[in-house]
Amino acid sequence: MKLASRRSARRDGELLVVSKDLRRAVAVPAIAQTMQDAIERWQSVEPFLREVYDQLNADRINTAVPLDMTALESPFPRSYQFLDGSVYLHHMEKARKARGAEMPPNYKTEPLMYQGLSDRFCGPREPMVFPSASLEPDYEAEVAIVVDDVPMGQSRDDAAQHIKLVMLLNDYTLRALTKTELPKGFGFMQSKPTSSFSPVAVTPDELGTLWDGEKFHFALISEVNGKRMGQPNTGKDMFFSYPMLIEHACRTRSLSAGTIIGAGSVTNQDESSGFGCIAEARIHEQQSHGAAKTPFLKDGDEVYIDVLDDRGETIFGGIRQRIKVLKGD
Amino acid sequence: MKLASRRSARRDGELLVVSKDLRRAVAVPAIAQTMQDAIERWQSVEPFLREVYDQLNADRINTAVPLDMTALESPFPRSYQFLDGSVYLHHMEKARKARGAEMPPNYKTEPLMYQGLSDRFCGPREPMVFPSASLEPDYEAEVAIVVDDVPMGQSRDDAAQHIKLVMLLNDYTLRALTKTELPKGFGFMQSKPTSSFSPVAVTPDELGTLWDGEKFHFALISEVNGKRMGQPNTGKDMFFSYPMLIEHACRTRSLSAGTIIGAGSVTNQDESSGFGCIAEARIHEQQSHGAAKTPFLKDGDEVYIDVLDDRGETIFGGIRQRIKVLKGD
Repeated sequence: MKLASRRSARRDGELLVVSKDLRRAVAVPAIAQTMQDAIERWQSVEPFLREVYDQLNADRINTAVPLDMTALESPFPRSYQFLDGSVYLHHMEKARKARGAEMPPNYKTEPLMYQGLSDRFCGPREPMVFPSASLEPDYEAEVAIVVDDVPMGQSRDDAAQHIKLVMLLNDYTLRALTKTELPKGFGFMQSKPTSSFSPVAVTPDELGTLWDGEKFHFALISEVNGKRMGQPNTGKDMFFSYPMLIEHACRTRSLSAGTIIGAGSVTNQDESSGFGCIAEARIHEQQSHGAAKTPFLKDGDEVYIDVLDDRGETIFGGIRQRIKVLKGD
Repeated sequence: MKLASRRSARRDGELLVVSKDLRRAVAVPAIAQTMQDAIERWQSVEPFLREVYDQLNADRINTAVPLDMTALESPFPRSYQFLDGSVYLHHMEKARKARGAEMPPNYKTEPLMYQGLSDRFCGPREPMVFPSASLEPDYEAEVAIVVDDVPMGQSRDDAAQHIKLVMLLNDYTLRALTKTELPKGFGFMQSKPTSSFSPVAVTPDELGTLWDGEKFHFALISEVNGKRMGQPNTGKDMFFSYPMLIEHACRTRSLSAGTIIGAGSVTNQDESSGFGCIAEARIHEQQSHGAAKTPFLKDGDEVYIDVLDDRGETIFGGIRQRIKVLKGD
């Protein structure tokens, strides 16, 4: 099943059921008004949403309209909780090397995870605004899950059942600020502005064998201004699985329905699959050619993140955003 | 004006206008259904809420009922954003000393602030549940403000106008986990479980001269099992003001209406005013008597945080919570 949120007068937008081919959509206010509303009552609303989805795919809904990607918000236009892990350890090794930092203690025994900004996400076709180019804006291509209510202390074995939706995630990062902010120990504040998500959220069953209950197995494409940055495989080199991330997150707290959990910038040890952010490309250039040449994001750039199925069709609709920088230096 | 949220079938509860003396309350669904609803449309709903407040104080509302503190949620039962600073530098010095950590770089030029958990707050009379006593549960007595929509890049001079509500805050902390979590650089995750707030949120004007537009000037009382831990003055030794915290928070992002900003555990340099958390008391005991004797929170303890007016009456209703620990060691 595929779901989206259309911009509306409400800050949470309007829930849409979207056809598998992303061509048509229909609002379902009688079932659930918003994505948050749906995830909070998932068990009772899911069968009705699936019925609409099946009818929509069979082209039996008169009120369906063509899907306008530019009218979509992130599937959750805002959320009560966004947690992001960093489980592709190769990315962490490279990112820390770039800012001259050590690897954190215990990084192989428990996942690194931070509490992220969630009060407003940028839309998948909305310009992303940075205050200044001197902050070294970067993107990070990631995959995120959404859970329903998870009790405190849930084990990894019981965690997978709570995974209800999957989205692509662009976790924008201001590299210049991570250097000064992370040594303070309080995590990302100014260095992680708002993120954005793919136009469409899908249920895990939609992915077939690309989801094994613990990891996703697809190539996560990212491009800047049409230039391919990489297509690392999300299942390779993922050190902690999604159920392990949930177990870590709920050790001392429950997680409310609609909690979004990312797994961090996707990268493979085999660098031939490229990179999922600019920082890694720059480190590679530095090491191979003595100088980083890929610039950080600047005004007017376009960032594109997507996953294609075996026929080359987009599964999540792809994130495609124009960068707007208020101050050039 | 004083506002609260009554528990209801909705996760956001039901907005109440509360009388100045905290004796009576009335729901105002025709004005705003929830606290979040009110803060998002603050400019248009505030005059109506104030009218109800005045009528309630004059005992002219027939439908008013006695205020039942045990039926209240935190004023925002959940929020899209909770940011917490640490601006009483003396607390930071002591807390870091206790876990053998250095003071962070630039701690005197920009405030330390973290992105906190906000998907569900514990109610002011609800038991607070910790998974294990071995995690060294502690409380932190703080004061938090709530803002309406703040654009990115707002300066401290323009920030004060966005401060709409004030609440007391108990920022529970698992001391044993801060020692392992903070060195990783990603901030608090497991070490800061959910927080709780005073039963009542008040508008700054309600505080008279106790609010000067930048800082609050009152004694913040905290007690464990009826034993006074301290009553430090919130205006003394506050190194960064609330407008400075807002400026810091919105440097690279806008802040959505309903964003809660705390200022950290209140403490004064003059230790005769006592402490606002157990960790500080323990450090003091260690230094003065060679051994820490105040235990961390354990099953059955009661934590009380309050501010009294000059007649000894509670302004915010006070946070009074029983501690429940699932595992004794």
